[in-house]
Amino acid sequence: MSYAPDSTANLARFNQTLDASAQIGVGRPGGLSRLALSDADREMRDLFVTWCEEAGLAVTVDACGNIFARREGTEPDVPPVLVGSHLDTQINGGRFDGIAGVLAALEVVRTLNDLGHATRRPLEIVNWTNEEGARFSPPMSASGAFVGAYTTDWVHGLVDDDGLSFGAELARIGYLGDAPCAPRPIDAYFELHIEQGPILDAEGRDIGIVTAGYPSHGMRVSFAGRTAHTGPTPMDQRQNALAAGARWLTMADDIGWAYAAYDGKATAARLVAWPNKAGILSDHAEAVCDVRHPDEKTAGLMAERLRRAASESAARCGCSYKIEDEWHWGGDIFDAGLVASIRAHAARLGFNHRDLQSQAGHDAYFLARHCPTAMIFTPCKDGITHNNEEFCTPESFRAGLNVLLHSVVERADRV
Amino acid sequence: MSYAPDSTANLARFNQTLDASAQIGVGRPGGLSRLALSDADREMRDLFVTWCEEAGLAVTVDACGNIFARREGTEPDVPPVLVGSHLDTQINGGRFDGIAGVLAALEVVRTLNDLGHATRRPLEIVNWTNEEGARFSPPMSASGAFVGAYTTDWVHGLVDDDGLSFGAELARIGYLGDAPCAPRPIDAYFELHIEQGPILDAEGRDIGIVTAGYPSHGMRVSFAGRTAHTGPTPMDQRQNALAAGARWLTMADDIGWAYAAYDGKATAARLVAWPNKAGILSDHAEAVCDVRHPDEKTAGLMAERLRRAASESAARCGCSYKIEDEWHWGGDIFDAGLVASIRAHAARLGFNHRDLQSQAGHDAYFLARHCPTAMIFTPCKDGITHNNEEFCTPESFRAGLNVLLHSVVERADRV
Repeated sequence: MSYAPDSTANLARFNQTLDASAQIGVGRPGGLSRLALSDADREMRDLFVTWCEEAGLAVTVDACGNIFARREGTEPDVPPVLVGSHLDTQINGGRFDGIAGVLAALEVVRTLNDLGHATRRPLEIVNWTNEEGARFSPPMSASGAFVGAYTTDWVHGLVDDDGLSFGAELARIGYLGDAPCAPRPIDAYFELHIEQGPILDAEGRDIGIVTAGYPSHGMRVSFAGRTAHTGPTPMDQRQNALAAGARWLTMADDIGWAYAAYDGKATAARLVAWPNKAGILSDHAEAVCDVRHPDEKTAGLMAERLRRAASESAARCGCSYKIEDEWHWGGDIFDAGLVASIRAHAARLGFNHRDLQSQAGHDAYFLARHCPTAMIFTPCKDGITHNNEEFCTPESFRAGLNVLLHSVVERADRV
Repeated sequence: MSYAPDSTANLARFNQTLDASAQIGVGRPGGLSRLALSDADREMRDLFVTWCEEAGLAVTVDACGNIFARREGTEPDVPPVLVGSHLDTQINGGRFDGIAGVLAALEVVRTLNDLGHATRRPLEIVNWTNEEGARFSPPMSASGAFVGAYTTDWVHGLVDDDGLSFGAELARIGYLGDAPCAPRPIDAYFELHIEQGPILDAEGRDIGIVTAGYPSHGMRVSFAGRTAHTGPTPMDQRQNALAAGARWLTMADDIGWAYAAYDGKATAARLVAWPNKAGILSDHAEAVCDVRHPDEKTAGLMAERLRRAASESAARCGCSYKIEDEWHWGGDIFDAGLVASIRAHAARLGFNHRDLQSQAGHDAYFLARHCPTAMIFTPCKDGITHNNEEFCTPESFRAGLNVLLHSVVERADRV
């Protein structure tokens, strides 16, 4: 038996691997709470490395904890084809988000091992550190460093809510690797991911061909006021930073509704204040909001409204404010050739497919700055994600897994 | 030398005592951060008990940690006159709020000791536990239990943000006393307090005669939603509990502004959410807001608007909500006879005085349910309080201290 256009990945083995992952970092029923660089993340990484070594792969870890598992090609000196995603989850996350992409890459390698097929270019599986950003903000920090958007030192300096740093936690769990986390030649990057939206499930599709990412803008804003007694202080003498933050979140939500009819969204995602107690006005608040819209220009307008809202909220409450951090991703970033190849394999194999935009952020967005990149989406029930009720049937991965297999081999074997 | 209508308290000694207190639980420069049942609270209590014992008082501690220091009268079996306030502070508190009232009571006793004057009724100094509510909500919990508004068990079960209980922390610092915390006969209660408002300072008054408390309504509301991804989830399918909480705080602030022209206030005081992280919609939020107005009926209308705002905020964000707790204080609660006596002594001693309403909550509000009660206010600079910049000159206590002395003796000596 050798590799052929009708070769198939081992769907049962893939799902068994997913099930094994779902035992590590168990959260609410059915879900996972496997925050980046936690003990559960270490346990999952250890198991993943074991699987890779059993598959004959050479594992290296870089200075941001990204794990690369390499299968040599017949031409070892050419840039590899990279396939992967992330094994960390949200605090109330599902068992498929990200994980399916890393384990699908593993299944591709295992299938090629079974078939005894050596690709021309090397293949590398990758697990990116802290894609979710649930513990260390911003998300996708380590894939960002890999493509040169961030420095390793900056990523190491990120701090979680308990004051623990990314660098120290990475060392603690034993995944502060020797390899530099910096751009190196990559032939192409593929990422399979659950859709995290309701479209494929609602339309009964087998697979989604990701043509672009929803343009998204996010920002973190701090508000500064002055503590005072909640009783005697007249309204016009108050500088309540918590009220300013709450106004900004409310205005963000309003912006989302204003663009909802054309699929725009805005999220009031996070608000922390100090002292944040009954009886006293807060003198500090920090908040995170984001806006998303399928149209790049409209997304930019929404972001401008969100910036203005921060200024207006602060002024209304007598506070000062500062945009501490701002990020932007999405747009028409994926490689037309790879997208066409994925679409062609989906059609050839008889899968019910459609093109769509990705609405979430992905490591692939950073990789697209560095090398030809494409994504494959698989259905998930009702689009529920970042929730323990995230659910995908074992069968739902059949199309994605096999289209990934053939797209990767086509890319890796091309002359 | 014996007690006479022109006897004076020792202002210098009182201020030295205040200074000694200001060394315990130092917070931001100039201020205190002496949360209830913290190590600093214990240290302050120990020092206070030492002072009381040096003044020849018999100290008892009740089951909620309230400290009573008793000076017998010539008729020991009649109910005592109680004088005091609280020694705990906000997290960013000043060195006078509450503390001045306890130490003024101590100074009254020391002065009577110096003068060799035994009052007819016993005098008791009291330090109420957790007046601020900054660590354990609600505020004034232990004076509430003393008058029977709460049970001791309920107070013991209050939990701080770290999950530590009032009862366990009380035992830890060694102030879980043997005396029951329950109503017992009290002849009258006096509380001296800094104004915590700008009126006396702005008008150059020596002393304020508190005629009533601003009617205040507060409530703690929880919002329940559903976690989901911030990217793909359409606006009309979101159940973002944080957004609901932020809307409620914003509407509370709006209610405050709507009544600001007639001295109404509303406070967005506290908001916590979970997971409260970028990338995910929060499924839980809890918030505290309050409203205050000098007119009882208007305060009630504001509270009704605040309740309706909770319902509207939840509905707007697809969430459910629950009013977990609700409190109300203030109104025309003080004893007319005591108020008249305080006013008369202020006039007789030539102090520039005026009547005013208290805008903050005080233990005196609970005591007024149980016995004739009155409050004396002293000026504080610009009305700044619940802030480390709270400031009172040593001289600013002269009027309050001496009016307290004579009002207490008049009450305690009456036939």
